Amino acid sequence: MIILKIGGGAGINLDTVAADIRNITEPMVIVHGANAFRDELAEKLGKPVKTVTSISGFSSVLTDSDTIDMMMMAYAGLRNKRLVEALQKVGVSAVGLTGIDGNLIEARRNRGIRVMQNGKKMMLRDLSGKPKRVNTHLLNMLLENGYTPVLTVPVLDENGCAVNTENDEVVALLQEALHADRVVQLIEAPGLLEDHTNPQSLVSLVSDEALEEWEGRVAPRMKRKIRALRKLFEHGNPTVYIGDGRSENPVTQALAGAGTTIERETAAALG
Amino acid sequence: MIILKIGGGAGINLDTVAADIRNITEPMVIVHGANAFRDELAEKLGKPVKTVTSISGFSSVLTDSDTIDMMMMAYAGLRNKRLVEALQKVGVSAVGLTGIDGNLIEARRNRGIRVMQNGKKMMLRDLSGKPKRVNTHLLNMLLENGYTPVLTVPVLDENGCAVNTENDEVVALLQEALHADRVVQLIEAPGLLEDHTNPQSLVSLVSDEALEEWEGRVAPRMKRKIRALRKLFEHGNPTVYIGDGRSENPVTQALAGAGTTIERETAAALG
Repeated sequence: MIILKIGGGAGINLDTVAADIRNITEPMVIVHGANAFRDELAEKLGKPVKTVTSISGFSSVLTDSDTIDMMMMAYAGLRNKRLVEALQKVGVSAVGLTGIDGNLIEARRNRGIRVMQNGKKMMLRDLSGKPKRVNTHLLNMLLENGYTPVLTVPVLDENGCAVNTENDEVVALLQEALHADRVVQLIEAPGLLEDHTNPQSLVSLVSDEALEEWEGRVAPRMKRKIRALRKLFEHGNPTVYIGDGRSENPVTQALAGAGTTIERETAAALG
Repeated sequence: MIILKIGGGAGINLDTVAADIRNITEPMVIVHGANAFRDELAEKLGKPVKTVTSISGFSSVLTDSDTIDMMMMAYAGLRNKRLVEALQKVGVSAVGLTGIDGNLIEARRNRGIRVMQNGKKMMLRDLSGKPKRVNTHLLNMLLENGYTPVLTVPVLDENGCAVNTENDEVVALLQEALHADRVVQLIEAPGLLEDHTNPQSLVSLVSDEALEEWEGRVAPRMKRKIRALRKLFEHGNPTVYIGDGRSENPVTQALAGAGTTIERETAAALG
C-alpha cells in the first residue's frame, strides 16, 4: 500500500502525475493540497488567507468560515476534481473525497493557537483540528472494488463541523490506519535540501532520527512538515520518498530514489 | 427509492433540508444544483457565465474551461461539501460525488448548440454533454453500506473530459437506472404555478400528458425543466413531487402533496 501526497503548489502538473500513477500497480490512496489555488482564489475574492506563527514557532493558517468556503472551492472543488479528471483520462478510476464525506476523517477540534500579540499571550480559536480517526471501512471498500481514493481537506470535527487540518497529519494518520509501507510526497523541489536556496544540495538518504535535528533549524512552515515526517515513524516503519512533483514520472522516480529517501535509523545504517 | 433534487438557488437553506432528510427512512440519492453560487463566483472573478438560446428555443449555459473550473468550485466544492456537512451534522452519512468520480455519470459530448448570430445559423461547440450511463455499482455499494450519495455536476464525456450537463437530465437518468418510484424536486417556489408571477396559482396535480402543453407556453429556462420532467415518464412510472425548498420540512411536505404532484395520466385520472 502506497500513500501518495501531492503538494498544493501550482508548479505540479496533474496530467504528468496522473500518467505516472497509471504505472503503479500497488493499491494507492492519494492525498493532495491546493494552497497555491486557495491563496490565488482568496486574493481574487478579496479575502486573503491569514497565517499566524505560534509561540512555539509553528506557522498556521487562521481558519474562519470564509476560509472553509475557499478550501471547499479550491481543495475539494477545483484541485480535487481536476486531479480526478486527469486520472480518469488515463484510465485510473479515481474517487475524490474530503474528510467530511462519509465521515472519512474525524478530527479533534483545536483548543486554540497560542500566539503573542502586542506583547501579550493570547489563544486564537479557529476552525481547525487534529485528525484522529479514519473510516477505513469506506476506504477499503473503494480500494477492494478497484477505485483509487483521492482525499483532501476539510475534515469533520467531533460535532460534525467542517474544519481545516494539516494534510501532512492526514497522511501520517492514513499511513498508520492502512499499514502503508511506503509514503511518497511530491513537492516543488528535488527533495530535502541541505540549503533550501540551493537545489544542488539534495540529501539522498536521511534517517528518522536525523529529522529531529532538521526540525530545529528550518523555517516555521517547513518545521511543521518535518514534524509530520517524524510522526510517520512514531507508529509505523514506512519508507518515505520525497520527490520532485515537477519532473517526468515523479512517482516512479521518487520510488527509485531520485529524491530524498527517509528510513528508520537501523534500516538506514544497514542500507 | 427516492431521488431528491435540490435546486441551486440561494434561498434554499441546506440545514433545514438536511434536518428533514434525516426523517426519511427510504434509501435516497440526492442531486443538487448551485447555479446561484456559480453565478456569484463568476461575477466576483470577473468571468460572468454566458448563456445562449438555441434556435429551438432552449436556454443553455455556454461552457468553456473557465466555466468548468467555476462549476468545480461552486457545485463540487462549496455547495456539495456544505450540504454533506449539514447532513453529517444531523447524523446522515452523506458522501458527495460528481459525475466524474468513479466514472459515475458518463455523457455523450454535445455536437454543438444551434444558434442564430447576426442573422446566420451557427453551431457553438462547448464543454457539455447528455448523461447516458450511470455507474450503478458504485451507487448501490454506497447505499447498501448506509451512505447517502450526494451528486452534482460535472460529468465525464466519452474521452474522460469533465463536461457540464443539465442536473434535470441526470435526475431522469438516475430515476431510470435505479428504478426510483419517487422523485422529489425542491425549488424556490411553492410548486408549478399556473401564473409564475402569482404564488397563489399553485397547481396541485398535473398529469404527464398535461406537461406537453405546459412546455409550449413557458419561458426558455423553464422549458428545459418541463421537458426533463416529461422525460421522467418516458422510461418509468414514478410519482414526481415538486415542493418549496424554502419551507420547513420541505421533503416530507412535498411527499405529503403540499406542492405539485405529477403522475401518469391514468393514475391521475384515478386519483
